[in-house]
Amino acid sequence: MSKLKGFEKLTYTYEALRTWLENVQIQRCREDSISVNEALNRVLAEDIVAKMDLPRFDRSAVDGYAVNAEDTRGTSQTKPLIFALTQAEELSEKGSRQAKQVWTGNPLPKGANAVVMLEKTKAKDGKIEIWVQLAPYDNVSRKGEDVKQGEVAMREGTRLKPHHLGLIAALGIGEIKVVDKPRIGILATGNELAEVGSELGEKQVFETNRIMLSALCCELDAEPLDLGLAKDDVNEIAERITMGLKVADAVITTGGTSVGGLDLVPDAVNKIGKPGVIIHGIAMRPAMPTALGGLENKPVLILSGNPVAAIIGFEVFARPMICKMLGMKKEESRPTLKATMTKKIPTALGRKTYVRVRVFKKNEDFFAEPVSARGSGAISTMTRGNAFVIVPENREGLIEGEQVTVQVFGAIDEE
Amino acid sequence: MSKLKGFEKLTYTYEALRTWLENVQIQRCREDSISVNEALNRVLAEDIVAKMDLPRFDRSAVDGYAVNAEDTRGTSQTKPLIFALTQAEELSEKGSRQAKQVWTGNPLPKGANAVVMLEKTKAKDGKIEIWVQLAPYDNVSRKGEDVKQGEVAMREGTRLKPHHLGLIAALGIGEIKVVDKPRIGILATGNELAEVGSELGEKQVFETNRIMLSALCCELDAEPLDLGLAKDDVNEIAERITMGLKVADAVITTGGTSVGGLDLVPDAVNKIGKPGVIIHGIAMRPAMPTALGGLENKPVLILSGNPVAAIIGFEVFARPMICKMLGMKKEESRPTLKATMTKKIPTALGRKTYVRVRVFKKNEDFFAEPVSARGSGAISTMTRGNAFVIVPENREGLIEGEQVTVQVFGAIDEE
Repeated sequence: MSKLKGFEKLTYTYEALRTWLENVQIQRCREDSISVNEALNRVLAEDIVAKMDLPRFDRSAVDGYAVNAEDTRGTSQTKPLIFALTQAEELSEKGSRQAKQVWTGNPLPKGANAVVMLEKTKAKDGKIEIWVQLAPYDNVSRKGEDVKQGEVAMREGTRLKPHHLGLIAALGIGEIKVVDKPRIGILATGNELAEVGSELGEKQVFETNRIMLSALCCELDAEPLDLGLAKDDVNEIAERITMGLKVADAVITTGGTSVGGLDLVPDAVNKIGKPGVIIHGIAMRPAMPTALGGLENKPVLILSGNPVAAIIGFEVFARPMICKMLGMKKEESRPTLKATMTKKIPTALGRKTYVRVRVFKKNEDFFAEPVSARGSGAISTMTRGNAFVIVPENREGLIEGEQVTVQVFGAIDEE
Repeated sequence: MSKLKGFEKLTYTYEALRTWLENVQIQRCREDSISVNEALNRVLAEDIVAKMDLPRFDRSAVDGYAVNAEDTRGTSQTKPLIFALTQAEELSEKGSRQAKQVWTGNPLPKGANAVVMLEKTKAKDGKIEIWVQLAPYDNVSRKGEDVKQGEVAMREGTRLKPHHLGLIAALGIGEIKVVDKPRIGILATGNELAEVGSELGEKQVFETNRIMLSALCCELDAEPLDLGLAKDDVNEIAERITMGLKVADAVITTGGTSVGGLDLVPDAVNKIGKPGVIIHGIAMRPAMPTALGGLENKPVLILSGNPVAAIIGFEVFARPMICKMLGMKKEESRPTLKATMTKKIPTALGRKTYVRVRVFKKNEDFFAEPVSARGSGAISTMTRGNAFVIVPENREGLIEGEQVTVQVFGAIDEE
């Protein structure tokens, strides 16, 4: 194989990520106390310890009648037993065959230890017939069975989804500690780029990476900071990165790094300080020219200018970086599923390759169809696709009919 | 089978949903022009028509040298050809064996029609050796190959993800029409409920449904409006729903509807006006007491007070309702995947049953383990689980080892 110009060697993705994260020593961001009402998608900065049992008391799990289970002994569909209805707070002692109507969630009246479901009973002359035999605590949610007082109900590092907020509220907790949103400075570079809204030069294209990377940050609940669009000038790039480091917890750049050409951004980063660029050149496709570095104990991620490569570089490196800044125990990955390749895909040995595919569902099975485009940088390969299939370094492609795991980033249609 | 009190019949979920949506005639919400920078997760209210080709010009898809493909005829690894390097805007006519260095994305110089990758060349005495034979347009992204001028690049009803924003920006579009966020009034009812932060009565529990339903609305990019917590009083409930209809596009309530007991909320809705409650009692578990109605041409969704039932009722009815209000062509579903049941689950025939499971990945396969809890209403079955498995009406449960499709709502661990 021919040697690549510009890179002494390419580093495998997992090795690059590990070395980078170890070198830069990413810290969890500061924490903040906020109302649970505003906590959707935030990440817990503390364990949630239950100050009470859930449920707080034995309660009915169904709509029906609370009874003493022993009173139902011997009943059956053909030989129902008659129970007297009571409105009292407490059933008379067992053997009295009393029943009290309860709705789901109601506390069990004293003297009752089971609930018969409404549909297993029949009202008759102010009394009820019951035709099922109950064991103690049938259809009863026991005090503390969901969460016991003193128990850790939710761990630090949990991303808070609607049901998490519900459990926190159920415990009576109104304010919680969450991790601050990591602030990510985002800089685009390149003379060939024009801002959307401006006039395009003859050889220019509109700059699209900042909006995409900002949106990717927002999806992880990080806060993007726009560091603008720099010309291909080491000094201007260095100035903007330095400015970014003043306000942001990490800086991500796009452009100005290549397989064999100019390395304006790596040069700028090395000019600013130590350690500068730690790894340059990753054994992956696209995004091979990605570089990983650090300045002032903050991570600096140098992405390719190619829009699809920038997104994939973000997925592989910025996603775990942000999850670590958020104090999550492990990287939060995109949804994955297994699908069958509809066509073969050739890839290069020794490169982890991210292929855009369109996954669709047919007769309950998932299939993955490669999204063809000669220009791999075309962002339309992502709008036409909805998932990545990742071909590992030790394969020269995938074969038709092969079962693969895909990472889903868009809606899946049924055919 | 025993007849259910309170419901003449239960309606199947799909029939209930269809009847409801047809009756209420849900309209797409108003539209709004916003900057593409603020459009993440919004839904397009217009087709995006490309005003230019993408790429705008033939451009290099790799780092390398632009050449005339015919000049490479006959070259091979053992018999490389020598090309002269030029800095000119244009290559001399074919046969002259000129090459111009280009980086990925650079426009092709005039006279060139292919690019040889850097790693297939070798610099030598100011010239380069090329050892691969090229066909015209090898390693070239052709003008318009991704998107053609005049083509619909993205359809109305598309939920805008980072890569969609990138494509819109690439087309030079800075402002787009999106559908307004549907405003969803959310009312909780029940004497047994206390606001988080207040003192709990002996038989009270903290109210958790509003925060969860609000968060579920936010996840779909709808705007929740808090209609408060009403006592079990038909007049108070009716007043709050009426107030909600003044400001919201739809109202969702929880509590005050049951299988066999009091129907305070349905009664309140019927008291306010027509059509009122359209369907009451769904052939599903949990969430059987769900009722669907309409007032003032706005949908009213009456959910069970049980927190898990409220969430599942939201998933089954509010999710498609909101997607329709957003003008989406089809319901946006949660990610799904196929998993193997680790245990059997019994369910009732004739009820679509939503079972909470914990899906985990082991040796590249997914498994689903039922999350046991006697009280099906326990929100901890959702924080301990991460997916629903839906058992259809014509099954009495699932068997161990069965392959099922699950709907994922939480992070999946690898074991």
